[in-house]
Amino acid sequence: MKTAILSVGTELLFGQITNTNTVYLSRQLNMLGFDVMYHYTVGDNPKRVAEMIELAFEDCDMVLTTGGLGPTQDDLTKEVACKVLDDELVMMDDVLQEIVGYFKKVRREMTENNKKQAIMPSRAKVFHNDAGTAPGFALEKKGKYIVCMPGPPREMKRMFEKSVLPFLKEMSGSAIYYRMIRTFGIGESKLETVLMELIDGQTDPTLATYAKEGESCLRIASKRESLEEAKDAVNEMLEKVKDIIGEYIYSCDDEELAQVVCRKLLENKITISSAESCTGGMFAAALTDFPGISGSFQRGLVTYSNEAKMDELGVKKETLEKHGAVSEETALEMVEGLKKVSESDICISVTGIAGPEGGTEEKPVGLAYIGFIFGEKKFCKKVLMRNVNRKWNRNYTLLSMLDIINKELG
Amino acid sequence: MKTAILSVGTELLFGQITNTNTVYLSRQLNMLGFDVMYHYTVGDNPKRVAEMIELAFEDCDMVLTTGGLGPTQDDLTKEVACKVLDDELVMMDDVLQEIVGYFKKVRREMTENNKKQAIMPSRAKVFHNDAGTAPGFALEKKGKYIVCMPGPPREMKRMFEKSVLPFLKEMSGSAIYYRMIRTFGIGESKLETVLMELIDGQTDPTLATYAKEGESCLRIASKRESLEEAKDAVNEMLEKVKDIIGEYIYSCDDEELAQVVCRKLLENKITISSAESCTGGMFAAALTDFPGISGSFQRGLVTYSNEAKMDELGVKKETLEKHGAVSEETALEMVEGLKKVSESDICISVTGIAGPEGGTEEKPVGLAYIGFIFGEKKFCKKVLMRNVNRKWNRNYTLLSMLDIINKELG
Repeated sequence: MKTAILSVGTELLFGQITNTNTVYLSRQLNMLGFDVMYHYTVGDNPKRVAEMIELAFEDCDMVLTTGGLGPTQDDLTKEVACKVLDDELVMMDDVLQEIVGYFKKVRREMTENNKKQAIMPSRAKVFHNDAGTAPGFALEKKGKYIVCMPGPPREMKRMFEKSVLPFLKEMSGSAIYYRMIRTFGIGESKLETVLMELIDGQTDPTLATYAKEGESCLRIASKRESLEEAKDAVNEMLEKVKDIIGEYIYSCDDEELAQVVCRKLLENKITISSAESCTGGMFAAALTDFPGISGSFQRGLVTYSNEAKMDELGVKKETLEKHGAVSEETALEMVEGLKKVSESDICISVTGIAGPEGGTEEKPVGLAYIGFIFGEKKFCKKVLMRNVNRKWNRNYTLLSMLDIINKELG
Repeated sequence: MKTAILSVGTELLFGQITNTNTVYLSRQLNMLGFDVMYHYTVGDNPKRVAEMIELAFEDCDMVLTTGGLGPTQDDLTKEVACKVLDDELVMMDDVLQEIVGYFKKVRREMTENNKKQAIMPSRAKVFHNDAGTAPGFALEKKGKYIVCMPGPPREMKRMFEKSVLPFLKEMSGSAIYYRMIRTFGIGESKLETVLMELIDGQTDPTLATYAKEGESCLRIASKRESLEEAKDAVNEMLEKVKDIIGEYIYSCDDEELAQVVCRKLLENKITISSAESCTGGMFAAALTDFPGISGSFQRGLVTYSNEAKMDELGVKKETLEKHGAVSEETALEMVEGLKKVSESDICISVTGIAGPEGGTEEKPVGLAYIGFIFGEKKFCKKVLMRNVNRKWNRNYTLLSMLDIINKELG
């Protein structure tokens, strides 16, 4: 089914906020097998909203709108929907009761104009708003659909997941299943190349690659008559994908690499400490972003200066002078020193050149050494990145550290 | 002048990328005094691109497009522009020379199809692309303008700033000047309330507030006949604003708080070290994001466990048992211990409860203590946040640390 997404809100035209609703809805609709043909944004202006919907209906069968349902402008999209699809607004008692209940729950007084939010197109299928007061709805006439949701992303997403998604799935008359596969260490174009045969030869399941900063993702999606069939098709394809790129996959369920590492650490009751130079605390910050990680993460030493490396970790002055702060020798002495002071099960160190300055021909910007100790195992891994910029280099170094831990934890 | 922004790219309709170009252009155009009436997005389809531009011209005088200029689709928007505004494509030798030069510079071989990028509408004002190969352009007929820019945000922004902005300024026949004021410690609605008299009473300069995670920003903009006049008007208004909210302002030039702190540290040759618990390395990571900060930042100790606090910083066991890890006493012993080991000019420590678990009635989630030493000065500041979520709490704690340093550096 051909669809258009219409965002209503003058604040979008002012550039005050980024339109994240549209990218979210586009992704969801594509996964459901709906074709997204247009994105439109207009201000809080009923005439323009109506014009846009009528324009969309020239070659689309469904328009999803966000915004224009708030307490001050709650009639805007509702009236427009009635006008375009030939319906009239009526007070819906059950919707009114829900709104009254919401105000009771959050212990706020309900003003008179909030009652207006219970006025709905008479034929509307109403969608409850879990996170606010304005309900959403779907209205149909002769195979043309208008689906209206509130503008605040939190309200819109909750309503979409709980109510709109089941409605659309039912409409599409088929079941969709997908998995998002996350990889590290292989670029998006390489990923596409090695999977080309699977990507090109398939109509269902479909495979699509996405680039993220330093990572590549792969979505495997299937649309079948039953959910079981779709699941089987996706999982069968996943096995084929694993045969080709298994070594790069760190999650088949769209988890972040740091999340996967934290989960494994906690599940296996393994303690960890870090000693960072070029990433300057990013590793510790990434791990401590995870609630409950105090059960595993013990300490992180950001030894940015040479003095700190010597003081805190016992790196030898001669090592720094002879091999430099960015060297395999320094990385190993850092991690050995960390093991002595922390006694954590896993110790990891990193030293590198994040740039933009500080590179030489022998040791260019984008070079890093990662020291690692876990039980009897001890090694140093050299990472040489294509030098994009300081931010990218630091993030890629962080991912490389997480990747080592993830692989060693098996 | 009424304008529309048209994004061209099937990847946007798939939801593969968020449309950041549109929010950027909307903000820029509004600041220039142009009215943005519509945002449109269509796929790489010449017919739909043409339809959208023609639709926009029904009530707009200018359409800005991004995308559809890449090497594989380089004719798309150019041909459409020619069709809509009645022009023809010609090979432009000076543009060709620029493209040849670009390939020489990046030492890549120039393929035949890259030559096509030098083909332009004959009446076009061409905009050079600093960051890629596809040039942009503006085309006019009878007061209707099409301005085409490349899709990749980095290329688009550079071209906009260097070429399109001066072009639009000249067109608007007036001069625009604005400053972005950044504050910490005052919420957006409070900011709006205390400045209400200035905001409401003014048509030029205009004042607009923006919320950022944990911060509030204020834009003061003026549009006058000459740049001098606009500058004077903005700076005069800034003085009035400073009289009211001066204590909260940390930058009048849209700098990040961490950036302001790093600049001040380096300018004053002041060394710094940190001891973090709840922020878990975020402070160290924020400072080391700044190139060249090794001249000031020496070490960061992420003492997440109680053992680490005792080992690394000499926090007393009795203190932890009697007052708890999250207490003024612990924060002060942390910063005192840090001063002993690091000898940095400024030492800062933090301990708090980021949540979601770990709060009590006496010590709720969102409570943090920041210890600070600089020369003879030593104190502990208690921060009690409204507990939004772990991510927000950690970020607000980080900003509170930076705010203390910024104020103490004067």
